Amino acid sequence: MLRVGINGYGTIGKRVADAVSAQPDMELCGVAKVSPDYVAIGAVEAGYPLYVVDETRIEEFREIGVDVAGTVDELVEESDVVVDATPSGIGAENRSLYERHDTPAIFQGGEDATVAEVSFNARVNYDEAEDADYVRVVSCNTTGLSRLVAPLEEAYGIEKVRATLVRRGGDPNQTGRGPINDAVPDPVSIPSHHGPDVQTLFPKLDIDTIGLKVPTTMMHVHAINVTLENPPASEDDVRDLLAAQERTIMVPEYARIDGAGTLKDMAADAGRPRGDIWENCIWEESVTLQGSDLYCMQAIHQESDVVPENVDALRAISGHLSGPESRSLTNETLGIGF
Amino acid sequence: MLRVGINGYGTIGKRVADAVSAQPDMELCGVAKVSPDYVAIGAVEAGYPLYVVDETRIEEFREIGVDVAGTVDELVEESDVVVDATPSGIGAENRSLYERHDTPAIFQGGEDATVAEVSFNARVNYDEAEDADYVRVVSCNTTGLSRLVAPLEEAYGIEKVRATLVRRGGDPNQTGRGPINDAVPDPVSIPSHHGPDVQTLFPKLDIDTIGLKVPTTMMHVHAINVTLENPPASEDDVRDLLAAQERTIMVPEYARIDGAGTLKDMAADAGRPRGDIWENCIWEESVTLQGSDLYCMQAIHQESDVVPENVDALRAISGHLSGPESRSLTNETLGIGF
Amino acid sequence: MLRVGINGYGTIGKRVADAVSAQPDMELCGVAKVSPDYVAIGAVEAGYPLYVVDETRIEEFREIGVDVAGTVDELVEESDVVVDATPSGIGAENRSLYERHDTPAIFQGGEDATVAEVSFNARVNYDEAEDADYVRVVSCNTTGLSRLVAPLEEAYGIEKVRATLVRRGGDPNQTGRGPINDAVPDPVSIPSHHGPDVQTLFPKLDIDTIGLKVPTTMMHVHAINVTLENPPASEDDVRDLLAAQERTIMVPEYARIDGAGTLKDMAADAGRPRGDIWENCIWEESVTLQGSDLYCMQAIHQESDVVPENVDALRAISGHLSGPESRSLTNETLGIGF
Amino acid sequence: MLRVGINGYGTIGKRVADAVSAQPDMELCGVAKVSPDYVAIGAVEAGYPLYVVDETRIEEFREIGVDVAGTVDELVEESDVVVDATPSGIGAENRSLYERHDTPAIFQGGEDATVAEVSFNARVNYDEAEDADYVRVVSCNTTGLSRLVAPLEEAYGIEKVRATLVRRGGDPNQTGRGPINDAVPDPVSIPSHHGPDVQTLFPKLDIDTIGLKVPTTMMHVHAINVTLENPPASEDDVRDLLAAQERTIMVPEYARIDGAGTLKDMAADAGRPRGDIWENCIWEESVTLQGSDLYCMQAIHQESDVVPENVDALRAISGHLSGPESRSLTNETLGIGF
Ligand SMILES: NC(=O)c1ccc[n+]([C@@H]2O[C@H](COP(=O)([O-])OP(=O)(O)OC[C@H]3O[C@@H](n4cnc5c(N)ncnc54)[C@H](O)[C@@H]3O)[C@@H](O)[C@H]2O)c1
Ligand SMILES: NC(=O)c1ccc[n+]([C@@H]2O[C@H](COP(=O)([O-])OP(=O)(O)OC[C@H]3O[C@@H](n4cnc5c(N)ncnc54)[C@H](O)[C@@H]3O)[C@@H](O)[C@H]2O)c1
Ligand SMILES: NC(=O)c1ccc[n+]([C@@H]2O[C@H](COP(=O)([O-])OP(=O)(O)OC[C@H]3O[C@@H](n4cnc5c(N)ncnc54)[C@H](O)[C@@H]3O)[C@@H](O)[C@H]2O)c1
Ligand SMILES: NC(=O)c1ccc[n+]([C@@H]2O[C@H](COP(=O)([O-])OP(=O)(O)OC[C@H]3O[C@@H](n4cnc5c(N)ncnc54)[C@H](O)[C@@H]3O)[C@@H](O)[C@H]2O)c1
Repeated sequence: MLRVGINGYGTIGKRVADAVSAQPDMELCGVAKVSPDYVAIGAVEAGYPLYVVDETRIEEFREIGVDVAGTVDELVEESDVVVDATPSGIGAENRSLYERHDTPAIFQGGEDATVAEVSFNARVNYDEAEDADYVRVVSCNTTGLSRLVAPLEEAYGIEKVRATLVRRGGDPNQTGRGPINDAVPDPVSIPSHHGPDVQTLFPKLDIDTIGLKVPTTMMHVHAINVTLENPPASEDDVRDLLAAQERTIMVPEYARIDGAGTLKDMAADAGRPRGDIWENCIWEESVTLQGSDLYCMQAIHQESDVVPENVDALRAISGHLSGPESRSLTNETLGIGF
Repeated sequence: MLRVGINGYGTIGKRVADAVSAQPDMELCGVAKVSPDYVAIGAVEAGYPLYVVDETRIEEFREIGVDVAGTVDELVEESDVVVDATPSGIGAENRSLYERHDTPAIFQGGEDATVAEVSFNARVNYDEAEDADYVRVVSCNTTGLSRLVAPLEEAYGIEKVRATLVRRGGDPNQTGRGPINDAVPDPVSIPSHHGPDVQTLFPKLDIDTIGLKVPTTMMHVHAINVTLENPPASEDDVRDLLAAQERTIMVPEYARIDGAGTLKDMAADAGRPRGDIWENCIWEESVTLQGSDLYCMQAIHQESDVVPENVDALRAISGHLSGPESRSLTNETLGIGF
Repeated sequence: MLRVGINGYGTIGKRVADAVSAQPDMELCGVAKVSPDYVAIGAVEAGYPLYVVDETRIEEFREIGVDVAGTVDELVEESDVVVDATPSGIGAENRSLYERHDTPAIFQGGEDATVAEVSFNARVNYDEAEDADYVRVVSCNTTGLSRLVAPLEEAYGIEKVRATLVRRGGDPNQTGRGPINDAVPDPVSIPSHHGPDVQTLFPKLDIDTIGLKVPTTMMHVHAINVTLENPPASEDDVRDLLAAQERTIMVPEYARIDGAGTLKDMAADAGRPRGDIWENCIWEESVTLQGSDLYCMQAIHQESDVVPENVDALRAISGHLSGPESRSLTNETLGIGF
Repeated sequence: MLRVGINGYGTIGKRVADAVSAQPDMELCGVAKVSPDYVAIGAVEAGYPLYVVDETRIEEFREIGVDVAGTVDELVEESDVVVDATPSGIGAENRSLYERHDTPAIFQGGEDATVAEVSFNARVNYDEAEDADYVRVVSCNTTGLSRLVAPLEEAYGIEKVRATLVRRGGDPNQTGRGPINDAVPDPVSIPSHHGPDVQTLFPKLDIDTIGLKVPTTMMHVHAINVTLENPPASEDDVRDLLAAQERTIMVPEYARIDGAGTLKDMAADAGRPRGDIWENCIWEESVTLQGSDLYCMQAIHQESDVVPENVDALRAISGHLSGPESRSLTNETLGIGF
C-alpha cells in the first residue's frame, strides 16, 4: 500500500484525494489545508484526515466542527509520497519541506518545470519518473496537448504543431477572476509558454502555441493544426487512431454536443463524480485533413484532466507498477472512457 | 408500486427520472424523447426504457444504437401517472394525450396555471392534489419563493412580500440563450408573473416581484423583503426557523461560500448527483430584521429544486402517502439536507 | 475662470476633464497620472497638460512621446480646485497634499464619507458645499438612488425605500475583474453600504439596500421599491414627475430598449461622447403603483452619471453660481436630456 | 453628387449612413427601416429622411413622432446606388427590388457571395467593382483577414494561412444571443466558411480557418499563422509593413491595451463616433516570425470595420474615383488612423 498525503486541498487536491482513495494499492493518509471553510468540511465528510498548514489556526478549524489530525509536517512524515496541489509558486516553496522529510513529491503544472527532475504525462514518459524523487505533472492545457501529440507523432511523425488555446478565465468557484466581456490575448507574445511546456515532454517537437483567455469557466477549447510528416490516406484513419486512445473521447456529430455545457451534462448523465471529464474531448467532425495539415478542436476539462496523470505519477515515482499496468488500473478505477 | 412515465427527457425530465428510480414505492416505466442525441444515449445507459414521441424517427434512434421501447402513447398507457417535462407550452398540448389514456399527469411550471386543477408545492398544499387528475408543480422560482413564504407566514404572519429575482439567463447546456453582457429587466412590467404564480399557492398573500435576467447559468438569486405582521424579537429566531425547514439550507459565513460556483462545488464535494442542490440556499448573514422588515438573499438551483416536489406530487396525486410521509421519504431517498 | 486640476486620470478623471473643458467658466489646468499608457497618450491628444504623480517616471512618459508639464504638486498649486479621481482609498491619502497647498478638493464616492465635510449631489444639497473646502461626490449608485429619492420625497413623502442593486462586475476596460458566471451577493450582509451612503444626503430617510454583483460591464440596474407617504392618484403622476427631472430619462415602451446595450446604442446614435449616459434611465413601463408602494427599475451608467455632479460640485465649492444656475449650465454644455 | 439610399438601418446601416453623410461627393437620400423604435428616432434626430419598408406600419411611426418620407420603393427609385444592410438572407430577397428600379446595390457579408457579381475589399479588388451592378462587401471577419493577407501576399508571398477566429457571440445590443458561459466551436467542421469567403477575394490563396463563438460582444479576436514564401530577415520588417497599411493599427506594448475594452476606451478617448474602430488592431508584440511561420493576433470591431469598405464600394460601383483616391478620401473624412 502506497501511503499518499495531499498538500493543498482545492480544485485539484480534492479530486486527487478522491482518485487516490479509489485505488486498491493506495491509502490516503490525509489532506493539508490552510483555511477552515466549506472545503474543509467536505474533506471531513469524505472521511479524509485533515492536517493544518498553519498551526495557529487549529482553533478556527475546531470552531467550525473540523477535527484536525495534525500539521502538514506530520502528514509529510507519515506519507510515502506527497501530492502538492497548492497554488502556483507555493509548490516550489514547499519543496524544502518534502526534502526535509525525505518524502518524494508530485508537483502540479502551475510550478516551473525546474521544480522537479521530470515533467510528466502518463502516456508519454511514465518510465522517466521511476528514478525521480520529484515529478511535475504538466498543466491541464499541456496534458491535453500531449495526449493528442503522442499518438500522432508515433503514427505519422509530426513536422509542426500550431495550437490556439482558448482558455477559460477562471474555475467555476473563482468569482474574483475575469474577464467579464473580453477575449484577452494572454500572453500577448507568441509562442505562449504552453509550447515550451509541451517540449518538456517532447523535446524535439516543433510547436507554436497562442493563448487567449475568455469569459467561460467550464473547459478550455483548443483549435489545433498539426502538419504531419506521413499523413494517412484519410482523416478517418486519424479519427480511428484518436478514438483508440485511452484518455481521449471522440464527440460524434449525432450526439449534438456543442460545447462544454453539453459535455458536462453528458458527464453528469453518466454519473461521473463532480461531472468530471478526465479525457480530451475531440469533436469528430472537426478532425480534418487538408493535404498534410491535420486540424481538430478539443475541449479540456481543466479541473480534472490531470487527475489520472497524478495517480499514475504516484505509481511511477514509487516504482510500483509498469506504465501500462498503472494506466489501465487508473482508468478502470476512475471509470475513464464512456 | 406506482408506475411512472416521464414525457420530455431534458433538464427536468432526466432528474425526475433519476429521482423516481430512487423511490422504493415507484417504478419508472420509461421516458419519452423527441430527438436522438447524447441525452437519449444517457437514458439508455441509465437503463431507462426509451419511448419516441415521433414514430417516424425510430430509425434515427436505432442508428445511434438506442433501442426504442415504443411510442409515447404506449408509455402513457402503461403508466399510472405521467410526469410531463416537455418545454413550456407543449405540456398544455399534451394534456389531451393524457386524457385520452385516462392517465393522471404532473405538469411543470412552464405551463400556465390553467393546465391543471391544482398548482402544487409539497410544503404548502400537498393535500389539495389528492383529488386532482392534473397537477402543476410550480416553477423553480415560485418553488423557491414558496418555501420561504410558508414558514414565515405560519410563524409571524406576512403583511407583504417584495422580491427581486435575479434570474440566470439559461441553463448550462443552452448555448443559444443570452444575454452575454447585460442585466435585462424581464419582464419590464412590475409585478412580474412570479408574484401571481406564488399566489396560486397562497391566494391571500400580498406579494410583488421584479424580474431580471443576467449572464449566468448556474442558479437564480433572490433578494427578498418580507414585512412581517408579528416580527420575532431577533433575526436569530428567523434564522432558526428557516434552518429548521427541510428543504432549506442556511449558508454560514464561515463556509466562505460567495455564490453559485462555490455552492455547487460544495454539492459536488458532498457527492450530490449532477451537483444538484434541491434546497433553497439562504445566506445566513443576509437574514436581517429591520423593524418588521425581514430581508435575505437566497440562491435557487433552477435545474433541480422542483425535483423533490415532482416526486411528492406523484404521491399526492395517487393518494399514496400523506404529505409528511411522502416528503420525508423523498428527502431520505434523495439525500436532501447537508 | 475657475482653474481646475484633475488628479487621477482614469474612467472618472478623463470624463470630468472633458466636462470641465466644456464649461465656459472653467479652465482645465491639467491632469495628473501615474503610468504612461494609452490613456496618457489620449490626454495629450485631447490637449490636456499632463502632470506626473511619480517624478521618477518622467522619462518613461517621454519615451512614449508624452511631454510632461510638471508634477502633481505643481498642478495642485496652480489649481483653484482639484478633482481627485484616484482609486478608492487613495483620495484620502491625497487629502494632506491638497491641504498643504491650501487647495480645495472634490473627492469621489470610492472614499469614505469622512474624507470630506460634505457628501454631495447637485439636486439634493448644492448649497451645503458652498462653505466647504472638501466635498465628496457620492458614488454612481448613490447618485442614481438620490436622483430618484429627491423628487419622490418632495412630492409625496417617503415612508421607506427598499432597493436591490444589480451591479456591473467591472468597467469595460477592467479585464481583471469578475465574476464570469455568477451573481454574487456583495455584500452578503443587509443593508449594503449604499443605504447609509444615501443617508449622507438624506439623513432622515429610511432606506435598506441589497447589493449583488453580476457579469456585466455596461450599467448597474436598480430594482426599486418606495413606500410613499401620500401616494398620488395614479402611476402616471409619478411618471410625469420623474420625466420632469433634469437628470432622469424615461425609457418608453415603444423605444424597444431592453437593457444597457440598447441604451448605450441609443446614446451613440445621439452622438454622445463615449456613448455616455449621465442620466438615470428609468423604464417607464416599470413605474408601477400598488397602493402606496411604488416600484420601478432604472439603469445607471457607472462611468458617467457622477460627471455632471462633479462639475456642479466645482461651482458649489467655489461659490461661483447658484445651484439652479450651475445645474442648468452643466446640462446645457454637456447636452444632458435627450 | 452620388445619391445614396440605405435599406436596413441597424448596426451596419446606421454607421454607413453616418459615413456617407460625411463624404463630400455623396448625398444621403434616406434610410429605410421596418420597425418604429429608438433607432428610428435616432435616424430622425440625425436628420436622415426615413422610409418605411412596410407601408402598413406608417401610422406606427407617426405615433412615436417619426415623420415618414416615403416607402422603400421610392427610396430605391431616388437613389443612384443603394446600400443594403438588412439581416443575412434578406439582402438576396431584396435584389429583385433593386433590379426593378435598375438601381445598383451594395450588399453585406451576411449574404452568400452569389448575391452579387463581385465580392469586395477596397484594398484588394477595388477595380473589379467598377463594371458591376451588384457588389458584396465581405463580412467583418473576412475584411479583417483580407487586410492582413493583402500586404503579406504582396511583400513575401503566402504559402498558407491558418487562422482561428474567436468570434464575439453577439453585438452589444443583441440580448437574445448567447453563449453565456461556453466557447462553442462554430462551425464544428473545419475549415469554417470564412476561409472560402477570403478566397472570393484571393482565389489562389491556400487558407484554412477555424471558428469559435465566445461570450463577448465587443470585438472578434483572430489568432493567425501565415507561412510565408519569402520571409523577411526579421519580424520587425513585418511590423513595419503592417504599420504602413492604412486600415491597420499596431497596438504597442507600452500602451497597455489588453483587449477590446481598452481598445474601445482608447477609441473613445480619441473622440471616435460610437467608439468605432474601423481598422484591424494588431498587437505589435504578437507579431512573431518562427522560420517562415509568421504569427499574430488582431482584434476586429465587427460593427464598424466594413464601414469604410462600403463607402469605397459606393465609389467603385459608380466609377467615381480611382481606388487610391477613394480610399484616401474615405480615410480622411472618417478620421481613420490614430
Ligand atoms: N484549477 C485548474 O484549472 C488547474 C488545472 C491544472 C493544474 N492546476 C495547478 O494545480 C495547482 C493547484 O491549483 P488549484 O486550482 O487546485 O488551486 P486552488 O486554489 O483551488 O487550491 C489550492 C489549495 O492550496 C491551499 N494552499 C494555499 N497555500 C498553501 C500552502 N502554503 N500550503 C498548503 N496548502 C496551501 C489553498 O488553501 C487551497 O486549498 C496549481 O499549481 C495549478 O496551477 C490547476
Ligand atoms: N430548466 C429549468 O430551469 C426549469 C426549472 C423549472 C421548471 N422548468 C420547466 O420544466 C419544463 C421542462 O423544461 P426543461 O428545462 O427540462 O426543458 P428541456 O428543453 O431541457 O427539455 C424538454 C424535453 O422535452 C422534449 N420535447 C420537446 N417536445 C416534446 C414533445 N412534443 N413531447 C415530448 N417531449 C418533447 C425535448 O426533446 C427535451 O428532451 C418546462 O415547463 C420548464 O418551464 C424548467
Ligand atoms: N468607475 C466607476 O464606475 C466609478 C463610478 C463612480 C465613482 N467612482 C470612483 O471614482 C474614483 C476613481 O475611480 P475610477 O474608476 O476612475 O478609477 P480608475 O482606476 O479608472 O482611475 C484611477 C486613476 O488614478 C490614477 N492613480 C492611481 N494612483 C494614483 C495616485 N496616487 N495619484 C494620482 N493618480 C493615481 C490611476 O493611474 C488612474 O489613472 C474612485 O473613488 C471610484 O470609487 C468610480
Ligand atoms: N453586426 C455585425 O457584426 C456585422 C458585421 C459585418 C457585416 N454584417 C452584415 O450586415 C448585414 C446587416 O447586419 P446588422 O448587424 O446591421 O443587422 P441589424 O439586425 O442590426 O440591422 C438590420 C436592419 O434591417 C432591418 N430590416 C429587417 N428586415 C428588413 C427588410 N426586409 N427590409 C429592410 N430592412 C429590413 C432591421 O429592422 C434592422 O434595422 C448582415 O448581412 C450582416 O451579416 C453585420
